[in-house]
Amino acid sequence: MTPEEFRAAAHELVDWIADYRATLADRPVQAQVEPGEVAGKLPSAPPRSPEPFDAVLKDLDDVVVPGLTLNQHPRYFGWFPSNATLSSVLGDLATSGLGALGITWQSAPALTEVEEVVVEWLRELTGLPATWKGTIHDTASTAALVAMLAARERATGFSETAGGLQAEPAPLTVYTTEQAHSSVVKAVALAGFGSGNLRLVETDPRTRAMVPQSLADAIAKDVAAGNRPAAIVASVGTTGTTAIDPLAEIIPIAREHGIWVHVDAAMAGSALLLPEMRWMVDGLDGADSLSWNPHKWMGTVLDCALFYVADPEHLVRVMSTNPSYLRSTVDGSVTQYKDWGIPLGRRFRALKLWFQLRLDGVAEIQARLRRDLANARWLADQVEAAPGWRVLAPVPLQTVCLRYEPEGMDAEALDEHTLAWADAVNASGAAFVTPSKLDGRWMVRVSIGALPTEHSDVAFVWDVLRRTAEKH
Amino acid sequence: MTPEEFRAAAHELVDWIADYRATLADRPVQAQVEPGEVAGKLPSAPPRSPEPFDAVLKDLDDVVVPGLTLNQHPRYFGWFPSNATLSSVLGDLATSGLGALGITWQSAPALTEVEEVVVEWLRELTGLPATWKGTIHDTASTAALVAMLAARERATGFSETAGGLQAEPAPLTVYTTEQAHSSVVKAVALAGFGSGNLRLVETDPRTRAMVPQSLADAIAKDVAAGNRPAAIVASVGTTGTTAIDPLAEIIPIAREHGIWVHVDAAMAGSALLLPEMRWMVDGLDGADSLSWNPHKWMGTVLDCALFYVADPEHLVRVMSTNPSYLRSTVDGSVTQYKDWGIPLGRRFRALKLWFQLRLDGVAEIQARLRRDLANARWLADQVEAAPGWRVLAPVPLQTVCLRYEPEGMDAEALDEHTLAWADAVNASGAAFVTPSKLDGRWMVRVSIGALPTEHSDVAFVWDVLRRTAEKH
Repeated sequence: MTPEEFRAAAHELVDWIADYRATLADRPVQAQVEPGEVAGKLPSAPPRSPEPFDAVLKDLDDVVVPGLTLNQHPRYFGWFPSNATLSSVLGDLATSGLGALGITWQSAPALTEVEEVVVEWLRELTGLPATWKGTIHDTASTAALVAMLAARERATGFSETAGGLQAEPAPLTVYTTEQAHSSVVKAVALAGFGSGNLRLVETDPRTRAMVPQSLADAIAKDVAAGNRPAAIVASVGTTGTTAIDPLAEIIPIAREHGIWVHVDAAMAGSALLLPEMRWMVDGLDGADSLSWNPHKWMGTVLDCALFYVADPEHLVRVMSTNPSYLRSTVDGSVTQYKDWGIPLGRRFRALKLWFQLRLDGVAEIQARLRRDLANARWLADQVEAAPGWRVLAPVPLQTVCLRYEPEGMDAEALDEHTLAWADAVNASGAAFVTPSKLDGRWMVRVSIGALPTEHSDVAFVWDVLRRTAEKH
Repeated sequence: MTPEEFRAAAHELVDWIADYRATLADRPVQAQVEPGEVAGKLPSAPPRSPEPFDAVLKDLDDVVVPGLTLNQHPRYFGWFPSNATLSSVLGDLATSGLGALGITWQSAPALTEVEEVVVEWLRELTGLPATWKGTIHDTASTAALVAMLAARERATGFSETAGGLQAEPAPLTVYTTEQAHSSVVKAVALAGFGSGNLRLVETDPRTRAMVPQSLADAIAKDVAAGNRPAAIVASVGTTGTTAIDPLAEIIPIAREHGIWVHVDAAMAGSALLLPEMRWMVDGLDGADSLSWNPHKWMGTVLDCALFYVADPEHLVRVMSTNPSYLRSTVDGSVTQYKDWGIPLGRRFRALKLWFQLRLDGVAEIQARLRRDLANARWLADQVEAAPGWRVLAPVPLQTVCLRYEPEGMDAEALDEHTLAWADAVNASGAAFVTPSKLDGRWMVRVSIGALPTEHSDVAFVWDVLRRTAEKH
């Protein structure tokens, strides 16, 4: 495709995207397809000769869009927000248009240095410790895995350069809670610790936050048994209920034993852009790493997860390689982000953050987050005041966990009822919420924070929930 | 940013990208900045209020572009090709514009099913075994790590669900060659094997390919010592010299011992689109996994690595998690790509492959690859015929490893000379090549395959190399 052919097609696609975003609210929120339906509409082989752009554009309308659940819809209240702000989409288009290849600093100095600057902007804006350094990973899952690798290598004195984990004399143990994201369990397994060495520390039945005394007890028990505590993953804003583990009490316990503390703030990190929300990470100094996802609530287009560490030299020692074809004369004086994560070849991801921050401005992002926090508090108040309805967990952020509990229903009937009305809401296309389990029983998460979601949309979904649940 | 503001800015950006690509050849190939120069041009904080789009666009010109080494330049012969075809840029723009969130099938059925279809198209087009299934990772580095995890878990009977690698009774060992990509050494370290358990099998001094008998000997030695051979990484197209390990001899040795065989074809995979190049993977049946990067020579915009496995059930068992908030009624009947790799939240990466294959057509891609192969053979012939010049390794693909060896220079002086003239070529901005070490001595890799690189550009770089090296 020549630059002129691109110019013509891209202008069409830009108009298509602008129209799509402008009319999103008129579409059903949940994808409207059965398994196999999208694949069934595609041919079994690509064409030998070029197809006209209009044919591809038509398939976006006819095949792709009906097969998507619309995260940017004003009545999307599913999982967590996944905005894809148009300012960051512009940045991502610039990334692709430039086609830079981040392997070493030399391959794309601007890719490295814009990332350094933007990651530092966001460190400052979120009030993280001034000495921490950061990078961009694809997701918090990858960040959690990298944190577990860094913790493993600190606890073993760099076993990776010798016999590996398999040559270690005593088991390394990791601590988190059952409310931690599934990626934490996965990271522990993939890093080779073995899930048998993962301890799920008790949580407070009201706040769902880690109980520091139980953490201390679990560590003491492992130490007494000859095990070696290596890592703690504390959650700031869990996926289930946005619970917040108390860092100020956890970190001193970790420090006593030299345990790596990784803070998973994938969702809640966006709220750190609001000074009044920084209480969530009180006591953070002394932790070792933290990750949060601008691609969630802040609204940067996927994928974009920030990963900060207190000791970058340790991280680099764990993650680096240095073959001759990647060496250059400036190596000592520049940041080589290839040695901060898993991939060698890196996309110029910093541009989407750079564009978003500059084109929207920080004040607009902050105002939007405050709007969503207020909307969540409003919804929680309505639910608490409505007969038969319960708010099941504190609402420190923008997610409300709720259930309608008609009188005289036993636990199993209630589970069935909850799933049935949540599915009915989603199937209607009018709004989208996520059923989830808490204490082994189904409830519904209403996660507020799509870009166009205003108070009226929250009032609307509350009306839909009531009408659907109460008549079911 | 509203859809209308996006429309206006995106039209400007599209024109900027089209102009940039159309005039790329007039710019110096290598980035023209010193360490810190790009960062020094950026403010210490983002603005509180929106900036006009023109200010951002101006910074692309003034700050970003001078800080990039231009992989799409017709005289870029560095590392490996990293084309970012404009057809795939369109697909990537659609991905960002749609802003779909791939976590489960339900979150974006089209994201999953277009990926299934496109990955199958490319399996068929590259002649991989019909029963293999694939997915898209960011890079071959991640694919290598996932392969090592799958191998580890097969050899240990799923240690990750018990005591992990640390509870294993005897060391697991891994086999590759010193010519393997640095990401292989990294994957072995990160997966917890320990680099002390990585065996670098002897290579043929002429072809640089793994010597099967040496592999068999190394395995026998480990088995005799009570170690447990777990994985072999075979390279099809090494980074140093595009050497090709002989799969037809390696795989039967692996099968005897139940060893996982991962084939790293990151660069050479694109050539499998040409039936006449499939000899490179003769004997592939019986291997366990293979990865290759459409984001290299084929020209899909970063990041896009295909990863195929013979036994997807095993992969899923190693990589899966299943928390309640991700469960749905269709789980058994759909593919959940979250369980095929590390990240949970996935970008709709398949669109860029889909757009490229449809908008360019397969025939055009094949013709371009054949052009590059012919250009590499032509260059190798010139080098071999020129006095004082040597081709240092076979040229099965599109990379020529060469050196100018003036008479009477000792090895150290020659190293200095080689680095000096290569740096001079790169500093001139006229072309870009990569110095690399082979047998401990510096040589220069000329890697052909940028999209606009025609025969005249290869003739040009050969002239530049001669003039620069011979006068130095």
